[in-house]
Amino acid sequence: MPKVITAAMLVIGDEILSGRTKDQNIGYLADIMTAIGIDLKEVRIVLDDEEDIVAALNDVRQRYTYIFTSGGIGPTHDDITADSIAKAFDVPCDYDAAAYSLLESHYTKRGLEFTDARKRMARLPRGATHIENPVSVAPGFRIGNVHVMAGVPSVFQAMLDKVLPTLETGIKMLSATVSCPLGEGIIGGPLAEIQKSHPLTIIGSYPRFGEGHFMTELVVRARSQDVLEAARKDVEAMVKSLTT
Amino acid sequence: MPKVITAAMLVIGDEILSGRTKDQNIGYLADIMTAIGIDLKEVRIVLDDEEDIVAALNDVRQRYTYIFTSGGIGPTHDDITADSIAKAFDVPCDYDAAAYSLLESHYTKRGLEFTDARKRMARLPRGATHIENPVSVAPGFRIGNVHVMAGVPSVFQAMLDKVLPTLETGIKMLSATVSCPLGEGIIGGPLAEIQKSHPLTIIGSYPRFGEGHFMTELVVRARSQDVLEAARKDVEAMVKSLTT
Repeated sequence: MPKVITAAMLVIGDEILSGRTKDQNIGYLADIMTAIGIDLKEVRIVLDDEEDIVAALNDVRQRYTYIFTSGGIGPTHDDITADSIAKAFDVPCDYDAAAYSLLESHYTKRGLEFTDARKRMARLPRGATHIENPVSVAPGFRIGNVHVMAGVPSVFQAMLDKVLPTLETGIKMLSATVSCPLGEGIIGGPLAEIQKSHPLTIIGSYPRFGEGHFMTELVVRARSQDVLEAARKDVEAMVKSLTT
Repeated sequence: MPKVITAAMLVIGDEILSGRTKDQNIGYLADIMTAIGIDLKEVRIVLDDEEDIVAALNDVRQRYTYIFTSGGIGPTHDDITADSIAKAFDVPCDYDAAAYSLLESHYTKRGLEFTDARKRMARLPRGATHIENPVSVAPGFRIGNVHVMAGVPSVFQAMLDKVLPTLETGIKMLSATVSCPLGEGIIGGPLAEIQKSHPLTIIGSYPRFGEGHFMTELVVRARSQDVLEAARKDVEAMVKSLTT
């Protein structure tokens, strides 16, 4: 069996749950994970609340190969991700010497005061290693299998770029899409039979409402090209037989 | 104390976690909940996997006033939400007589076959009541505090419209936004002091990167206009003192 690498994501922030900010990081991470052969199994969006973050993190981090978080690592009082992650790992959250001097030198060079708020961004769970932030300097961090990144999409994406080369990846899940002009009500029965006879594939059916009726995108997924092609052929034949 | 009504959302579907489909329902629900005074506390995105759905649902449904789900109630083999919800509630998933005849009459009138796949959409957990579907007939359902709706955004939204009048709503959370041309590193310290002196508010700080530097939107939230205004005044004064 090919090795399967799994992941979960924790999105941290009141602003996502209030609707004020529309998340852009979940779909981005999902696309990247699929592209590199890591199975994203679960996403949770939680409030800026220490108890909620600790409970969610400790629930998922044992179950998946990698955890990715977004949000809550800025300089303000509602940025409590570093403290919460430290609590989940039961380690202190200290000023990290390297992060401190990185930030200090960044602000000094620009003639800006290294305020107490900015100093907060140098606090990391003890034992964490930096995730470089090429956009705005303040680092994300990795502790255990948990990768803690910013919520601002441009920074999240830049940090994820730094993380990707460090990840063990699995056998990429291949996929083939068959467009079907019929709704799920017509193809549902035969499609279930095809799924049964191709147990190594995952066949999904995604309805769209367009031109006054439902249409369907049928997506076959498998980790081997041969397995994929065999199922795709059956799906195409089924659609053809129902439309001609 | 004003009554607080809470909610969680469960997004069900492989296609969201693979990145193939970008969710549009989380942000929509979040906006509506905020508008009607229900606190959305948590969102989970899970696979089309019975064990995952049951575990997530049973974990959240005891903790919040209302649960809303999206996805997995169509006619194909990967639509396993009704069965999974039934399992979570430990009740059978049966053909519902009213849903069956609704669907049968819908397809008969249009001269379409009432296929086995379409019949699947008449299967509901025993004891569930319908959520009307004005877009494509097949109903969603409510069981206990759980509202089960479609994943297709137009259908999700139409179903939610039917659900809203049935919900008990809380005291609406009011909010005021103060735009700040300074980054969080500068305002973080004074903002934390303001949060401390206005404990009945929730003050959030949301950085945006624009025009070559970070700017911040400061959002004050409270359930009373007086409490809100007092904190807003302090935030505005703080921004003014730092920018002039």
